[in-house]
Amino acid sequence: MGLDRRDLLVGAIEGGGTKYVCAVGTGPGKGLLARASFPTGDDPAKLLAQVATWLKEQEAIHGTLAAIGFASFGPIDLDSKSPTYGYVTSTPKPGWQNTDVLGPLRAAFGPIPIGFDTDTNGAALGERCWGAAQGLDDFVYITIGTGIGAGGMARGNLLHGLVHPEVGHLYLPNLPGDDFEGACPYHGRCWEGLCSGPAISKRTGMAAEALPPDHPAWDFETRYVALAIANLVFTLSPRRVIVGGSVRKGGKLGEAAFFASVRKHLLVALNRYVVSPVFEGDGIDGYVVPPALGDDAGVCGAIALGQIAAQFE
Amino acid sequence: MGLDRRDLLVGAIEGGGTKYVCAVGTGPGKGLLARASFPTGDDPAKLLAQVATWLKEQEAIHGTLAAIGFASFGPIDLDSKSPTYGYVTSTPKPGWQNTDVLGPLRAAFGPIPIGFDTDTNGAALGERCWGAAQGLDDFVYITIGTGIGAGGMARGNLLHGLVHPEVGHLYLPNLPGDDFEGACPYHGRCWEGLCSGPAISKRTGMAAEALPPDHPAWDFETRYVALAIANLVFTLSPRRVIVGGSVRKGGKLGEAAFFASVRKHLLVALNRYVVSPVFEGDGIDGYVVPPALGDDAGVCGAIALGQIAAQFE
Repeated sequence: MGLDRRDLLVGAIEGGGTKYVCAVGTGPGKGLLARASFPTGDDPAKLLAQVATWLKEQEAIHGTLAAIGFASFGPIDLDSKSPTYGYVTSTPKPGWQNTDVLGPLRAAFGPIPIGFDTDTNGAALGERCWGAAQGLDDFVYITIGTGIGAGGMARGNLLHGLVHPEVGHLYLPNLPGDDFEGACPYHGRCWEGLCSGPAISKRTGMAAEALPPDHPAWDFETRYVALAIANLVFTLSPRRVIVGGSVRKGGKLGEAAFFASVRKHLLVALNRYVVSPVFEGDGIDGYVVPPALGDDAGVCGAIALGQIAAQFE
Repeated sequence: MGLDRRDLLVGAIEGGGTKYVCAVGTGPGKGLLARASFPTGDDPAKLLAQVATWLKEQEAIHGTLAAIGFASFGPIDLDSKSPTYGYVTSTPKPGWQNTDVLGPLRAAFGPIPIGFDTDTNGAALGERCWGAAQGLDDFVYITIGTGIGAGGMARGNLLHGLVHPEVGHLYLPNLPGDDFEGACPYHGRCWEGLCSGPAISKRTGMAAEALPPDHPAWDFETRYVALAIANLVFTLSPRRVIVGGSVRKGGKLGEAAFFASVRKHLLVALNRYVVSPVFEGDGIDGYVVPPALGDDAGVCGAIALGQIAAQFE
């Protein structure tokens, strides 16, 4: 799959673990003609029927959809030769294990092209087309919220492989003085187990949004995020790292202070080993950045997924 | 750069941190018509002059070289628009910091195409063309020796980006009971600081080759290697992981026992979160494997780098 796309009218589904954001449109801003949000819940069949009905209603209003783009939380099966292609697989989310999420849409819409990828690759694609990754063929988009995930591109291709990245589960060093046991049911103290919203709540007894700016948990949070980004720099060598998701807004600490702390600790972690102008002077300020599309990165990415799929009709 | 290549006669340079292995040939085995090895030492200008002289001697014997492939230890500058393209940059290796390694070859050989990449991407390419990664567009090649590095492919492209992967410097969790301070001058207890040959020597006072099979350092070694591979699985989602380099031979423990331990600990680290047939039953035995070209992966990869460069003549 290349990046060839036109500003076609498509249906978009950003299937997150907390809510499904659906849209009909041609791109961000005024290109978003209609949108709706549904709680993800624990009944995928019911939800996907609601989504299909809403998209058909919008199609009656706005015109025929050229394609659908569907960016789903994972893990998902992206191997088009697999019998479980289009399934959510080993998620801990109740009701969603081993669930065919693509099938109900295919059944509802027939032969319309459907672009399908991870929610994080979707958001990455949105930023690549219209946001902070324009012109970059090697970058990472991270989301830190209910879970942690990442998507991105290597040499202009969305990151896939045996499955797809599950960067939230990166193993990280234990920081001195941190005896938190972690919150990931699979890996305990992996990145998601240390830094997701639920991990912050488990660590502090407070939601990230309620945490005072001087709470020591913010220091742990931004240092672990920096170590994880260092690991991504060592592995993927991205030209930019975009950090989205609710936790990156930093609650009462604020987004600017959150990013400043992550950038400072990232330079410490890299320790001048990786040589590039982006790690000199204030280059780091343009290297680790929030999404230019803000909270619309994901749904815009789903639009782009649909528009690319339409090229293969 | 694609993988388009023909079995042309080329010069090959595998520029390692310990030795430079040079060859003239068309591929592995009988395709290797001549080879020579030079200690890398601390005088790059002298070494590169020796290498150029040897290649010209071989050209006089075997015929005109269509190109040269050069796979160098790093970090190296791979940005063809950079003023330091073709340089070794921030290496701790004495005599080699900020050294133009490509320039002397260009000066000696004139307009001949030269393919230039990291030593680990070179070895990865060798395994892709003739070894354990044939047919795979997403895989990782790791080398564990004097240092630790990795190359590989994502969606059929060699891994590049802002710079190139420096996977040896991945941050890893501290294993319980391990108070070793690490050996990396930049990052202390990063993967290379924990698991390279010199790290094993610093940890145990013995070379890896001399270490008894029941020495506890082997358990630490294979568990850290497994955690690092888990991090690569979470990030790059490779379809296979090839582990080369001298340490992977396992010394007196043996290569088979080394790999068996790494595979076992990798499955523990993934903890059934990443779902794929390769993590079921004995699938893991074909997932983490030694290089099929053995110690010739690097020099054969340099041949392939040259053959691909020749297509762009």
